Amino acid sequence: MEQWLVFWKNVSFVDVIEFLGTFAFAVSGIRLASAKKLDWFGAFVVGFVTATGGGTLRDLLLGVVPFWMISSVYVWCTIISMVFVIIFRKKLVHLNGPFLWFDSIGLGLFVVVGVEKALTLDYAIWVVVLMGTITGIVGGMIRDILINEIPAIFTQEFYAVACILGSLLYCSFDYMGVSAPVTQVSTAIFVFVIRLAATRYSWKLPVLKGEL
Amino acid sequence: MEQWLVFWKNVSFVDVIEFLGTFAFAVSGIRLASAKKLDWFGAFVVGFVTATGGGTLRDLLLGVVPFWMISSVYVWCTIISMVFVIIFRKKLVHLNGPFLWFDSIGLGLFVVVGVEKALTLDYAIWVVVLMGTITGIVGGMIRDILINEIPAIFTQEFYAVACILGSLLYCSFDYMGVSAPVTQVSTAIFVFVIRLAATRYSWKLPVLKGEL
Amino acid sequence: MEQWLVFWKNVSFVDVIEFLGTFAFAVSGIRLASAKKLDWFGAFVVGFVTATGGGTLRDLLLGVVPFWMISSVYVWCTIISMVFVIIFRKKLVHLNGPFLWFDSIGLGLFVVVGVEKALTLDYAIWVVVLMGTITGIVGGMIRDILINEIPAIFTQEFYAVACILGSLLYCSFDYMGVSAPVTQVSTAIFVFVIRLAATRYSWKLPVLKGEL
Repeated sequence: MEQWLVFWKNVSFVDVIEFLGTFAFAVSGIRLASAKKLDWFGAFVVGFVTATGGGTLRDLLLGVVPFWMISSVYVWCTIISMVFVIIFRKKLVHLNGPFLWFDSIGLGLFVVVGVEKALTLDYAIWVVVLMGTITGIVGGMIRDILINEIPAIFTQEFYAVACILGSLLYCSFDYMGVSAPVTQVSTAIFVFVIRLAATRYSWKLPVLKGEL
Repeated sequence: MEQWLVFWKNVSFVDVIEFLGTFAFAVSGIRLASAKKLDWFGAFVVGFVTATGGGTLRDLLLGVVPFWMISSVYVWCTIISMVFVIIFRKKLVHLNGPFLWFDSIGLGLFVVVGVEKALTLDYAIWVVVLMGTITGIVGGMIRDILINEIPAIFTQEFYAVACILGSLLYCSFDYMGVSAPVTQVSTAIFVFVIRLAATRYSWKLPVLKGEL
Repeated sequence: MEQWLVFWKNVSFVDVIEFLGTFAFAVSGIRLASAKKLDWFGAFVVGFVTATGGGTLRDLLLGVVPFWMISSVYVWCTIISMVFVIIFRKKLVHLNGPFLWFDSIGLGLFVVVGVEKALTLDYAIWVVVLMGTITGIVGGMIRDILINEIPAIFTQEFYAVACILGSLLYCSFDYMGVSAPVTQVSTAIFVFVIRLAATRYSWKLPVLKGEL
């Protein structure tokens, strides 16, 4: 009983949000995997890579231990996502709204975590922005490569711009001496809003026309 | 003459098995490359990546020097595999049986090496199991991405389950204090048997059905 | 004014060449991206990865900080490449000749940089040759994977052989005690000439025929 209290005392609000974000990213990977007729193991791998791929590349580039090797919560979260998709697959079609929310919340938090890690290691601002963006987008890119598609982020969404702008906002607030919690919450909300607005109003980047 | 004796004295049984496993993995990559009309260089790259990709990702994640940068045996083994495929390509079709054996022996050994490395670095058991599995399967996944296919392991085989179960067996034996040689040989044989049995009896994981 | 003088004094001939090489590699990525109807962000990512992917994998394998995280010149160079392609896209078709030259100069320099880095870290000669080759070719490989094609280098070009031969030449000169500048310039010119000659005379490696 007391152990549970200690456990819950150590679970912060950010942990809860991060769990939801990981869950949403994993579910997005698992659903695409199921559309390609992958088996359970394949779906698990695609889900796990979608949720952790961006942070893993960031940590390898920064030369630190990949975050998911320190706590088992990301593996468990992916397993729970699998079970969830298996049980509720017929109903998930109607849940696209909530999932877009989860996914956007997760994106905001992933950007915050990525920017924070790079700032702590004293990298230049443009490296910090790249790390925030990599944390947000690379998982989905590897997901699409694994299922043999061109990354959706290259053609369909305003996703990456939300990550870049959010990272810049974080750096500006940090530079201006705004406290860490305010900076983090503002950035996460900002990314979340941009992402939702981009989806609702179909904001898109121009296509690069070219002739070979 | 004496130098050769010293050389052979330093070649252990595990080295021989590892060479055969690397050879079988490289040949599998080179044969798929030839089916896609790649040139010699492309075939070499695909063969080398099939044989070393899993261990390389493992070593990058663990933060140690990639194993194939320490001894040139893996490069030589891939070159020998190339020559072998070029000379015997018409006869290889009839050698699928022996190759399945090599491949399964190699898989068992790759899992043992991956688990051992992670255990030595004092990681938690679930990290150890992931490292054993990554060592066994990621080479084939990168192979399939390079030749522009969805990884075969996501749809066709019981391969990954053999790696996971073998890694768990290793950890259990290690926990119970079984000596290293016994643990390693048992694990390798176990993975080998599961893999062969899965192929013979067409064991498969269920497909994840989903609706987008 | 004085600052500019200091800036230019610190820009070496190699820096200029490296900038041109990065530019040519980025443009090649961005042009392929535009043929696949990617948006601006997608084109930027493909261009950046084409220019920096090989060096990044090399640095991760060698365990050093990826080169593009130390100076922002590679990000700027990719942005300039984007602007260049957007403005001149109708005229680029007629510039294939100059671009082949840039690309070949860049290739020569990338090989030199890769070999030098691995030599400085005291790796065995075959690791050094692999690092020079990886630096030259992996960016283009990742580019092709991102746009969902089999890497062109596996089927179409003598590209990789130029990298391997150039790396071997560098190591031989280094072994014979030739001074660094002479070794570097000779290697870069050698790779450049082999690459141009291979394109002009359609040198190709044999295709690996196989039966599955």
